[in-house]
Amino acid sequence: MKEPNLKTGERLDGLPSQGVSIIQNPDMFSYSLDAVLLAYFANPNKKGRGLTVDLGAGTGAVGLFYAKKVAGQVKLVEIQEDLAAMAKRSIDLNEMADRMEVIHSDMQEVFDQIKPGSVDTVLCNPPYFPVKETTKQNVDEHYQIARHEVAIDLPKLAQTANKLLKNKGKFFMVHRPERLGDIFAALTARGLQVKHLQFVYGKADREANMVLVEAIKQGRAGGVRVMPPIVAYTADNNYTEQVQEILYGAGWTLE
Amino acid sequence: MKEPNLKTGERLDGLPSQGVSIIQNPDMFSYSLDAVLLAYFANPNKKGRGLTVDLGAGTGAVGLFYAKKVAGQVKLVEIQEDLAAMAKRSIDLNEMADRMEVIHSDMQEVFDQIKPGSVDTVLCNPPYFPVKETTKQNVDEHYQIARHEVAIDLPKLAQTANKLLKNKGKFFMVHRPERLGDIFAALTARGLQVKHLQFVYGKADREANMVLVEAIKQGRAGGVRVMPPIVAYTADNNYTEQVQEILYGAGWTLE
Repeated sequence: MKEPNLKTGERLDGLPSQGVSIIQNPDMFSYSLDAVLLAYFANPNKKGRGLTVDLGAGTGAVGLFYAKKVAGQVKLVEIQEDLAAMAKRSIDLNEMADRMEVIHSDMQEVFDQIKPGSVDTVLCNPPYFPVKETTKQNVDEHYQIARHEVAIDLPKLAQTANKLLKNKGKFFMVHRPERLGDIFAALTARGLQVKHLQFVYGKADREANMVLVEAIKQGRAGGVRVMPPIVAYTADNNYTEQVQEILYGAGWTLE
Repeated sequence: MKEPNLKTGERLDGLPSQGVSIIQNPDMFSYSLDAVLLAYFANPNKKGRGLTVDLGAGTGAVGLFYAKKVAGQVKLVEIQEDLAAMAKRSIDLNEMADRMEVIHSDMQEVFDQIKPGSVDTVLCNPPYFPVKETTKQNVDEHYQIARHEVAIDLPKLAQTANKLLKNKGKFFMVHRPERLGDIFAALTARGLQVKHLQFVYGKADREANMVLVEAIKQGRAGGVRVMPPIVAYTADNNYTEQVQEILYGAGWTLE
């Protein structure tokens, strides 16, 4: 890895199991366990030798964690210019520029740069919260766009993913369980069949606070598999062994 | 409890935590952990002081386990005459005839006997498997009707439940996770909003093999809560403490 060249307010966050460091700026956006688990969960066709696109890539955490376990190209699409620039610097820092590229674009206008029907795998850690009248519009714009469905909502995201993917291509997303009904409706309506779900529970006796979703373009209807539970924390607030292995273990492999 | 009067092929299965015994005939149908967990999961409005209907009640296990924790009336609807008769004998055996009644009817034709819009809570442990061309039609009819969507499917069940329920009445169902997409589609299309899900995993490292569903008639859209995981068995094939408590514990209480 190169020497990091950090700007004011930036710090370096690392994922030891993947040997990746990400340039972060907590004033703008920070990735969290969601990004790690999405990258871990994604199980592409052909061990990821095809093209993968991360929609709404932020500072590139999902794409970089994921890229280390696959052999193919990974393109990151990010609408926010300064986050896209940070992602590009993280790619250089991790010496992944031969297989990774950042496209600064609204994901819905990316089709000049990524041909429809050309993508094997789409990843997305989208904004979780619907925009409501009560949504505070005066908070920091970076967080606003990352967290609320201002720039993209579930139906538009599903449409974009479906347009990019080849038939039988896979779509992987992390979201909130409270949106499950919306997720099934949006994906199914746009030809993406949900095939796997995995719920993440904060503790063994807590409600799920995350859901990992795999859908297949033009997949057979029905047949959802709900994978084993991921429990994040022990009763005494440490990471469980399961999550420690994902964060600090021997590195991720694809089956 | 009265003395059981068992016929040939029958046996008595009990749920110690609820002090209930059920007359069973394994040649026809046996309830399983699904029935226990559905009855346990069901959390009716007003502590169940209203009217509850169990659709497709079989030998009455769900209704009897549930009736012990609520104060209201519980009506069991069962299409198969001999199962309905066994349920009636189990109600008598458990001395619950003052609050429970069996209606031998197709659930879709029960509206002469249960007025539309009059029900506070609907319970259902429906057949799990779609009817396909490959479905064996020559197996035992009792199991066939209980397991395959021969007499009732998800859209018709949702329609029936919706028609019976009062506004804001609750629908509780146990089903298979592989049908989740169908469940969301069927319930949502008929005005039943999914509000709670709880997944049951055979073991901590296994896929979920059961899902418990709570939906509300004319409930607000969105806001699904995924309750803490239920893990049925330990690594060495004993019931977990969590399930032992449900089966053998001090009895169920409503919050």
